Amino acid sequence: MDFADGTALPRFAPVVLAGGSGTRFWPRSRRAHAKQVLALDGENTMIQQTLQRLLPVAKAKDVWVVTNKLLAEVIAGQLPQIAREKILAEPVARNTAPACALAAFLLEPAAPETVIGVFPSDHVVGNPARFVEVLRAGIALAASGERIVVLGVPPTRAETGYGYIEVGAAAAPSGDVPVRRVKRFTEKPERARAEEFFASGNYAWNSGIFLWSARTLANAVREHCPAMVPLLERIAAAHASSPAQFARVFAEVYPQCENISIDYAVLEPRSAKGEAGSEIYCLPADFAWNDLGSWAALYQHRTDCTDRQTTPANVCDGASTQSVVIDAAGNYVYALGKIVALVGVNDLVVVETPDALLITTRERSQDVGKVVEELRARGRYDLI
Amino acid sequence: MDFADGTALPRFAPVVLAGGSGTRFWPRSRRAHAKQVLALDGENTMIQQTLQRLLPVAKAKDVWVVTNKLLAEVIAGQLPQIAREKILAEPVARNTAPACALAAFLLEPAAPETVIGVFPSDHVVGNPARFVEVLRAGIALAASGERIVVLGVPPTRAETGYGYIEVGAAAAPSGDVPVRRVKRFTEKPERARAEEFFASGNYAWNSGIFLWSARTLANAVREHCPAMVPLLERIAAAHASSPAQFARVFAEVYPQCENISIDYAVLEPRSAKGEAGSEIYCLPADFAWNDLGSWAALYQHRTDCTDRQTTPANVCDGASTQSVVIDAAGNYVYALGKIVALVGVNDLVVVETPDALLITTRERSQDVGKVVEELRARGRYDLI
Repeated sequence: MDFADGTALPRFAPVVLAGGSGTRFWPRSRRAHAKQVLALDGENTMIQQTLQRLLPVAKAKDVWVVTNKLLAEVIAGQLPQIAREKILAEPVARNTAPACALAAFLLEPAAPETVIGVFPSDHVVGNPARFVEVLRAGIALAASGERIVVLGVPPTRAETGYGYIEVGAAAAPSGDVPVRRVKRFTEKPERARAEEFFASGNYAWNSGIFLWSARTLANAVREHCPAMVPLLERIAAAHASSPAQFARVFAEVYPQCENISIDYAVLEPRSAKGEAGSEIYCLPADFAWNDLGSWAALYQHRTDCTDRQTTPANVCDGASTQSVVIDAAGNYVYALGKIVALVGVNDLVVVETPDALLITTRERSQDVGKVVEELRARGRYDLI
Repeated sequence: MDFADGTALPRFAPVVLAGGSGTRFWPRSRRAHAKQVLALDGENTMIQQTLQRLLPVAKAKDVWVVTNKLLAEVIAGQLPQIAREKILAEPVARNTAPACALAAFLLEPAAPETVIGVFPSDHVVGNPARFVEVLRAGIALAASGERIVVLGVPPTRAETGYGYIEVGAAAAPSGDVPVRRVKRFTEKPERARAEEFFASGNYAWNSGIFLWSARTLANAVREHCPAMVPLLERIAAAHASSPAQFARVFAEVYPQCENISIDYAVLEPRSAKGEAGSEIYCLPADFAWNDLGSWAALYQHRTDCTDRQTTPANVCDGASTQSVVIDAAGNYVYALGKIVALVGVNDLVVVETPDALLITTRERSQDVGKVVEELRARGRYDLI
C-alpha cells in the first residue's frame, strides 16, 4: 500500500467507536439497535458504511470496534469481515478516552509505529473518495514524530451543537491536503460565540476523527491521564496472556477507568502547550461530513445528495412505491413498505416502525429524546 | 310498539342507503370498503351504528339496505340481523331517487300505509335517544295524509358543503317535537348565501333523512318522475314473482332509471307548490348529527363527544397504548396497534393502514380525494 508520492503507508489500525444510546433516531433506534446499526442512508448500516470507507486504507484484520454489550452481537453480524475478538464490548460505558487509550496500550508493545485512527461510526460521508485522500494524508502526517492529527469539518453554519477546533498557522501540506496547526479545542459554544467562530474562518467543527501512532497516544495518556495507565497495563497484559484472562480482567478493571472523552482527557490539555508546542495538526474533513444528529440532519444529508428517488424536497424512505405529493415539501417520512401520501404538509418528520409512530417537525425532531425519557419513566423498556 | 301518547306506531320500513365510493376516508376507506363499513367512531361500523339507532323503532326484518356490488357482501357480514335478500346491490349507481322509489313500489301493493324512512348510513348521531324521539314523531306525522317529512339539522356554522331547507310557518308539534312547514330546498350555497342562511335562523341543513308512506312516495314518483314508473313496476312485479326473476329484471331494468337524487326528483318539484300546498314538514335533527365528510369532521365529532381516551384535543385511534404528547394539540391519528408519539405538531391528520400512510392537515383533509384520483390515474386500483 503506497501513497501517491511513493511513501509506504505505515500499519494503520482503525478503532471504530460504536457506543450509541439509540435515542436520536427513535423509534427506529433502540437501546439494542442504536443508530450505528441502522441503514438510515442507503442499503448499508452506518457501521457497515464506516468500515467500507476505511477498507481502501486499512486491512479488515487491523480494525477494532469498541461498543457495548447490547450492540456487540448485532455489530458482529453486520461486520463479518471483523474477527469477533476485535469487537470489544465495554462492560460499562466509559466515554471515548479509555477506549482509545486501550487500543494504544494493546498495540504499543509489539508495533509502536502503528497509526491508530479513531472513528465514530454514526457519521455519514458524502464523498468517500475524498475521505480516503484526507485519511491517507493524515496517516502519513501522524506516522512521524509525536504528532496528533485531527480532522476538522469546514463549518457551513454557526452550529451550537458541535465542539470547535481553532486552527493557527499553516504547516506543510501532506500530499495535496492542506494542514493547519491547532490552537485550541472549544466546547459547544453559545449562539453569539458560534456566530463569531463561523464568521472568523479560523474554526472547524470537531469531527471526532483523530490519528496518532500507538506510541504517541500511549505517551499522551501517560502524560495527561496517569491514573489510567496501571489499569490499561493490566488489561493489555491480560490480552497478551489469553482470551479468557482478557475477558475477566477487562470486565473487572475497565470500569475503574475514568469516564471521560479523549478530547477532555488528552487533546485539550495537550493543546494548552500552544500551537507551536502541542504538535496537533488539523486536516480538513471536506468530504461532505454529517453526524446525523437528528432526523432533521438525516433529511438535510439526503437532500444534499444527488441520488434522491422521490419528489424534490420530500424524502420518503422505506415506501413501497412512488409517493403521492400534493402541495407538500420538506418532509422526511419513513414508512414500512407502504405508499406515502402527503397533502398540504411541510417540514414534518413522520417515522413508523412495527410498534411506534412518531409525528414531529424537522425543527423539533431533536426532541425525540424526550419521548424516550417519557417511555423510560413509564417503564416501557419494550419501546425504547 | 306505541308512541308516548298511546298512538300505535304504523309499520315502519327503513331504507338504508349505503352507496359510498370510499374516497373521503382514504386510506382506510376503499372502493370495496367504503366509509359505511368502517368503525370510524367506536367499536361498530357506521352502518352497524345506523341499524342500532333504528332498532328501537323498526323491526330488523323490515329494514332494507341499498348498496353496490362491491360493498354488499361486507354489509351482509356486518348486519347478520338483515335477511340477505333485503340487501339490494344496485347493478349501477343511480343516486338516491330510484332506490327510494323502488322501496315504495315494492311495499305499496301489500302495505301502502307503511312509512318508509330513508337513512344515509355514513352519518353519526351523538344523541341516539333524541334521534329515536324525533324519528317517532316523524313517523307519526308521515303516517297520515300525503305528508312528506324531512329532518333538518340546526346549522352551527355557515357551511357551504350542504344543501339547505328553508322552513316556513310552525305546524302543530308531533308529540314534543316542533314541526315547521318547508318553503323550499336549496343547493349547496356560495359563501355569502350560506352566511345569510345561517344568520336568518330559517334554514336547516338537509340531513338526507326523509319519511313518507309507501303510497305518498309512490304517488310523488308518479307525479314528478313518470318515466321511472313503468321501470319500477316491472321490477316490483318480478320481485313478487321469484328471487331469480327479480335478480334478472333488477339487473336489466334498474340501470334504465334516471340517475338523480330524491331531492331533485321529488322534493324540489313538490316544494314548488308552496309551503301550504306541498305538505312537506321539517322536524329538527337536533341529535348531534355529523355527516363525517372528512377526517377533519371525524376529529370534530370525536372531540365533541365526552368519551375521549386520549389527551384533550388529540385523538389517537387504533393506538396500542397511551400516546406520548409533547407540545402537540388538535391532531387526529389512526395507527395500527402501535404507540403514537406527537412532538411539536398541531392540527395534523395522520392515518396508516397496512399499505398506505396519509399525512395531511385537518384543513386539507378533504383533499384526500385528490390522492385517490392520482392513484386511479396511475392504475393503482390495489390502493384505492
